[in-house]
Amino acid sequence: MRLASRLDNLGTETAFAVAAAAADWKARGNEVYPFHLGDLDFPLAGHIVEAMNKAIADGRTGYCPGPGIPELREALADDIGGRRDLQLDPAEITVMTGGKPVITKFIQAVMNPGDEVLYPNPGFPIYESQIEYHGGVARSYRYLPTQDGFRIDLDQVRELITDKTVAIIYNDLQNPISAESTDQEREAIAQLAQEHDLWVLSDEAYFEMRYEGESRSIASLPGMRERTVILYTFSKKFAMTGSRLGCAVAPPDLSKVFGTMNTNDESCTTHYVQWAGIAALRGPQESGQETLRTLQGRRDAAVELVNQTSGMSVQTPRSTFYLFPDVTEAIQIVQADGLADFAEQALHHTGVSFCTRNHFGRPQPGEDRRYIRFAYSGLPEDRIREGLTKLRDWVGSF
Amino acid sequence: MRLASRLDNLGTETAFAVAAAAADWKARGNEVYPFHLGDLDFPLAGHIVEAMNKAIADGRTGYCPGPGIPELREALADDIGGRRDLQLDPAEITVMTGGKPVITKFIQAVMNPGDEVLYPNPGFPIYESQIEYHGGVARSYRYLPTQDGFRIDLDQVRELITDKTVAIIYNDLQNPISAESTDQEREAIAQLAQEHDLWVLSDEAYFEMRYEGESRSIASLPGMRERTVILYTFSKKFAMTGSRLGCAVAPPDLSKVFGTMNTNDESCTTHYVQWAGIAALRGPQESGQETLRTLQGRRDAAVELVNQTSGMSVQTPRSTFYLFPDVTEAIQIVQADGLADFAEQALHHTGVSFCTRNHFGRPQPGEDRRYIRFAYSGLPEDRIREGLTKLRDWVGSF
Repeated sequence: MRLASRLDNLGTETAFAVAAAAADWKARGNEVYPFHLGDLDFPLAGHIVEAMNKAIADGRTGYCPGPGIPELREALADDIGGRRDLQLDPAEITVMTGGKPVITKFIQAVMNPGDEVLYPNPGFPIYESQIEYHGGVARSYRYLPTQDGFRIDLDQVRELITDKTVAIIYNDLQNPISAESTDQEREAIAQLAQEHDLWVLSDEAYFEMRYEGESRSIASLPGMRERTVILYTFSKKFAMTGSRLGCAVAPPDLSKVFGTMNTNDESCTTHYVQWAGIAALRGPQESGQETLRTLQGRRDAAVELVNQTSGMSVQTPRSTFYLFPDVTEAIQIVQADGLADFAEQALHHTGVSFCTRNHFGRPQPGEDRRYIRFAYSGLPEDRIREGLTKLRDWVGSF
Repeated sequence: MRLASRLDNLGTETAFAVAAAAADWKARGNEVYPFHLGDLDFPLAGHIVEAMNKAIADGRTGYCPGPGIPELREALADDIGGRRDLQLDPAEITVMTGGKPVITKFIQAVMNPGDEVLYPNPGFPIYESQIEYHGGVARSYRYLPTQDGFRIDLDQVRELITDKTVAIIYNDLQNPISAESTDQEREAIAQLAQEHDLWVLSDEAYFEMRYEGESRSIASLPGMRERTVILYTFSKKFAMTGSRLGCAVAPPDLSKVFGTMNTNDESCTTHYVQWAGIAALRGPQESGQETLRTLQGRRDAAVELVNQTSGMSVQTPRSTFYLFPDVTEAIQIVQADGLADFAEQALHHTGVSFCTRNHFGRPQPGEDRRYIRFAYSGLPEDRIREGLTKLRDWVGSF
């Protein structure tokens, strides 16, 4: 039976192949240290579970409005607005089944086939997949390593903009590389968006996953709110990845479109999970703060051991839960045949499982350094130390 | 800011306007009898809620596979296959956030822009919306009233098929009209699909919402399984509308595509809700049977009162929880100016709120009878009697 041509352009997260290899290695009786998946091993906070059960007991088990229940939209407007110096109206909030649907729906709403959209590379692989799936031209921009962390190559961004460019995807506090913008960099992106009348998808999934400094949203800059869609998710801060709860913040006209898309695609987001979301936002915040403290300890352990490893180096990121070390020399030391072989050898010699740069987009022309990504959110500090010590000692044994 | 042209073709469920009018009338201090929404007023069964809480306590709160957790796919293969005389493999099951996403994803997977898809009219409005949204040509087929219930106009279906037709959407046990196919009718659809090499989306949302007789799936007919996608939902039988849990049953290649779409669109369906689904399928079945008995009582009460109303008539449907009475003469009796005016007058004079035929597709040429839809799933029998008695007496007062 014939399938539609658009499927030829549907990408995916190739990281699942890494997960499968790790599961296979573990099933063969080996110890595995899973640094490949950006998931969290923290329980759902008690008051969040209680709120969900109360909602179920109160009969909030039927359909609810496509754009989300009013109480959650209000709580989101208060919380997201309050942290970004924006006075948000609940009409600007569309509740979704996680942050990911915001990407899909943003692309569908602002991009015609043939239009060009800029996106970060390395970056979250679904950006490119969705741009191409819906008939657009995906144009990736790069980051340059500096002594002060990774910086967006703004000259390249400028060069990439044509009269067909309609949007730029911007992921401050970046997955996988943990880059964060300076104020100047964020303002430069905002200025380009205004000069060229571009929509901005601001992926703020890690906005509150920050150990030092203060997060800022591009939507707060003058002239940006009316052209920016914020991707917000409950997944990280509240360890609610499996709950599938997030939202889009968008100008009211576009919000209406998102609500209609929800009505078409999935009716609504799980009703009682929305009440859990209200408890997460309005209830006690201690567990979120505790999660951040725990993650900071994991980060410090991981950074320390990575930098003790021959041919590997990483700066200490101030946000996200990823390290993106340069492993160019380590690959040479263990005589691996590129990134994939390095990852496979590391898994088989040490049990340490991780994604590589190549799981986050096609390498750019002239890219001569090699990187891997460690997610330190899914395993406790002692296991992080154990695994990365084995990795250090393995590379050191050559 | 400019939006994409595809949005011009995005439809919606206009029934929400009816809900808004009912809510408004109620807010002004009036009694309202909500027959407009196909939702259920039954609580989630205790063992389903317990299973969800156990899953949360067991830490099943993180990401899970895009196509669904293996245990639920297995339970669904057993249950859906067992009720349809099909030996299903879990690889043929893709868990989704309800039944609705199956429509969207089916259309995306099998239809190219310009292709034609047949769909029932009156029918669930999202069929037409999704066909047109994704650039297809929506060709609607009709039902003809007979002394033995509504029948698909098979001659019209035959005439509508062209060399551009790629799929037919088939909703046995139909929303809104409660039609059910004879074996002959189902076989005729299957034969046409095979003759013209069409995909079939078999919307089986109401497969188990049946008071008499036995449901059959078109997928069980010879030569059909490889060209049929079954839409399955937990919403009706288990009163889980707000839980957003369903699945697609599809040939393995297409299942893989659906899984990749899930990874792109929403990562996965809420993890612990999937465990609730396993409990629903594998656990005690009494509450589902009790729901059906209760609905049967409501059906009988509603049919009785509708048929006592001047200028209204309806046959007793053996399935679904809808009545689709012919109200052509009742409209004349109360001197209403068409269906919308009739609905508004009924709401304001009796508090009875309902959708009309026009919420389920554009009327077909030559359609000269007028229908409304009562959903009797959302209010108890005494309220059904109370509301429909008021309606009967109001029409009778002219």
